Amino acid sequence: MKEHDMDKKAIEPWITERLHEWSTIFDTCATCPAVNSARGYRLPGQSMIIDVLNGIVGLIFPGCLSNEEAPAFVGHLDGVRDTGRVAQDLYDCVLPVAKYYCEHKICQHCGDCEAFARRAVEGLFAAGPEIRATLQDDVQAAYEGDPAARSQIEVVMSYPGLYAVSVHRVAHQLVKLGVPLIPRVMSEFAHSRTGIDIHPGATIGRGFFIDHGTGVVIGETCRIGSRVKLYQGVTLGALSFAKDEHGNLVKGVKRHPDVEDNVIVYAGATILGGDTVIGHDSVIGGNVWLIHSVPPFSKVYNAQPSPLVKTKP
Amino acid sequence: MKEHDMDKKAIEPWITERLHEWSTIFDTCATCPAVNSARGYRLPGQSMIIDVLNGIVGLIFPGCLSNEEAPAFVGHLDGVRDTGRVAQDLYDCVLPVAKYYCEHKICQHCGDCEAFARRAVEGLFAAGPEIRATLQDDVQAAYEGDPAARSQIEVVMSYPGLYAVSVHRVAHQLVKLGVPLIPRVMSEFAHSRTGIDIHPGATIGRGFFIDHGTGVVIGETCRIGSRVKLYQGVTLGALSFAKDEHGNLVKGVKRHPDVEDNVIVYAGATILGGDTVIGHDSVIGGNVWLIHSVPPFSKVYNAQPSPLVKTKP
Amino acid sequence: MKEHDMDKKAIEPWITERLHEWSTIFDTCATCPAVNSARGYRLPGQSMIIDVLNGIVGLIFPGCLSNEEAPAFVGHLDGVRDTGRVAQDLYDCVLPVAKYYCEHKICQHCGDCEAFARRAVEGLFAAGPEIRATLQDDVQAAYEGDPAARSQIEVVMSYPGLYAVSVHRVAHQLVKLGVPLIPRVMSEFAHSRTGIDIHPGATIGRGFFIDHGTGVVIGETCRIGSRVKLYQGVTLGALSFAKDEHGNLVKGVKRHPDVEDNVIVYAGATILGGDTVIGHDSVIGGNVWLIHSVPPFSKVYNAQPSPLVKTKP
Repeated sequence: MKEHDMDKKAIEPWITERLHEWSTIFDTCATCPAVNSARGYRLPGQSMIIDVLNGIVGLIFPGCLSNEEAPAFVGHLDGVRDTGRVAQDLYDCVLPVAKYYCEHKICQHCGDCEAFARRAVEGLFAAGPEIRATLQDDVQAAYEGDPAARSQIEVVMSYPGLYAVSVHRVAHQLVKLGVPLIPRVMSEFAHSRTGIDIHPGATIGRGFFIDHGTGVVIGETCRIGSRVKLYQGVTLGALSFAKDEHGNLVKGVKRHPDVEDNVIVYAGATILGGDTVIGHDSVIGGNVWLIHSVPPFSKVYNAQPSPLVKTKP
Repeated sequence: MKEHDMDKKAIEPWITERLHEWSTIFDTCATCPAVNSARGYRLPGQSMIIDVLNGIVGLIFPGCLSNEEAPAFVGHLDGVRDTGRVAQDLYDCVLPVAKYYCEHKICQHCGDCEAFARRAVEGLFAAGPEIRATLQDDVQAAYEGDPAARSQIEVVMSYPGLYAVSVHRVAHQLVKLGVPLIPRVMSEFAHSRTGIDIHPGATIGRGFFIDHGTGVVIGETCRIGSRVKLYQGVTLGALSFAKDEHGNLVKGVKRHPDVEDNVIVYAGATILGGDTVIGHDSVIGGNVWLIHSVPPFSKVYNAQPSPLVKTKP
Repeated sequence: MKEHDMDKKAIEPWITERLHEWSTIFDTCATCPAVNSARGYRLPGQSMIIDVLNGIVGLIFPGCLSNEEAPAFVGHLDGVRDTGRVAQDLYDCVLPVAKYYCEHKICQHCGDCEAFARRAVEGLFAAGPEIRATLQDDVQAAYEGDPAARSQIEVVMSYPGLYAVSVHRVAHQLVKLGVPLIPRVMSEFAHSRTGIDIHPGATIGRGFFIDHGTGVVIGETCRIGSRVKLYQGVTLGALSFAKDEHGNLVKGVKRHPDVEDNVIVYAGATILGGDTVIGHDSVIGGNVWLIHSVPPFSKVYNAQPSPLVKTKP
């Protein structure tokens, strides 16, 4: 049954009779802080933000993910038209979010919300060529780092790590431009598609490669250098959370580790703490649990427990 | 290429010639128990059930996930109309499933399938305000439990743990109403989107928060108290399966642990067994493997293996 | 806001003014190896390949995933028509990919690309009934192996392991037919939906069951026997990568383990290396780390670290 068929079909009388009672579910809509109508703003829904994200990624890798045509085929003019449409959609997402956060005093940028939203769009698109060049290094890192990769186009079209990093580089630029809410929705969409959970606040250098990726967690205040390689199930997380005198969590402090250039972290390793620094050119072995810093060129391995093997005929 | 273009395009003659041969794939359709035509029922497909699920979640958090408009904007009347449509779609899903299971003797509710489907729809929608209030506690728990959370609306729009729990609370209500098949399809859709695998049979108290979430498994017969917090990769699973005298698995027995109020379980911990009880106010550390009960207020930690660190210049 | 509304809406003048500058992001499109326009081929985008994949899976399990009607309802003729459309779409995907790889000298099948694409389509559809029969064994294995499974139709409609294996059996057939790129895009879509990462090159026997599945990784050169059962988080991976004299990774060598018939591998176990063989009828326990072979009938368990339990009143 198609969606438009559903709209037309008849409603059973016993349903119609009870609608008034059931719609009490909406009674708290006007005041609940977790419903998209508090104070009358129409925030963009998750799916509108995802549409914009896909539009931006489509400009970076034309023809690879959706079926949009690459500018090389449709002519430069159509590529420009797509850019304009995506920019407008992004503006239409950022503006109500800016107003909502401004009104709720969570925003650091109170003032002219239209000007703020415009600066955000301009800032992202001006950074477009640089983001694209950085991602090209990420593609190259994946191609060189994985024996199973047969071509660069295969990396772009199929590698979840490359998709997660693509979304991260867009979302992180929006974080730097001060945009609330939207970057996190974008990052969590990539998390949903890939199992790779990168907070958009994390700072990540060039030539970054995540292989397989499911279960990777990279916290908000991580700083990752260049040419770093992670495998599935790696956590770069917090060791504990600071609380204020009222017992509430303190938000915004450095809680996650730094990983310097040329580090490899194998599957399932857990590295925790805001003071932890993995020195450059280190290798962290599979399933290692590390809550202190190690110097450059370290090799960190678990004495893997020898499993017990019993054999019966 | 858009889908409707595909429908119109010409088929190569060599394809047409071989269609008769290739369509032997359908020869067993009428009798195979794993095909949606056994005995002539038209069960709702996965995508129809997911449409209904999204409709229900859209009534709970209007305007947050899809782009449906919140009742506060469109007027109460439109919100009521949406409720009617979603209720009718749910009925159209439940009815053929009830008939299918009734005919196949797996169903415990044999009798009047129309009345059964109607009671299921009425039962779910009558519980709507209570489900919504419980989820509001879950939103609050996420906001208070994660230093990276900036607002409640961010939790609703982007946190995978909140989405998985939202789907669970809907699906679990349907389980309690005796509906087969549909709750599991809903739960597995949430699993697909979030990497969080909660069997719809599990019982979960208020103020539940799963952070990051990828890899979490919560088994069918788990009972989880209030204000429990889980991190990514936590398994609440079975230790072994009972078999009957013919060597077949016994279905329906208690196989998964109980977790009492105010427990925190850190990333990667594995807790197994139907007799295992984690006493209230306990903390289970990262990667712990636990197959027996612990009393209230326990702190359970691995002596984490000190990894070997070799440094070379 | 619906997509077609977006197309019509007005673009802000300040956006239009900057479009020329922003579209410099396209300047390298014509030459970049990671953009779908290199040398003028229009490769199918990710979403077109996924449409074809869903069409093929829809022929195998009619009515279960999307809402396509099973041939038993619509009549054999319509089923045949669907088969023709899916076959044509697959041909339209394979042909440009064959030309692209042929031109780039990565392809082993240089020559007549039309004939190559035709052989690929014919090869897949001729194997359809055999793939379907094999998957029926996989459904049976899931139903018998999971106490929570209530019916075979529940397995098909909701189990992520069954979906991942369904996609794998299709993608692996395409690998055997020499098709580049497309099988990997299909496998990574299944990875995205299920958290189960099976390289399409892996060889997997009948009656295969993955329970829960999130985080499972099965490498390209694995060989898995019949009636094998894996749980979530199991890695069958590479121990190290061979490099040539220039320090580049050698592609195509055996890097991943063999798992013989009737083996069970519990959650979180890691089995690594191209020379590692898990003998038939063995059981590998949860979280085991194994980098050498074990004989048939082995039971391999970690001495699980006894966690420290501190209790305070």
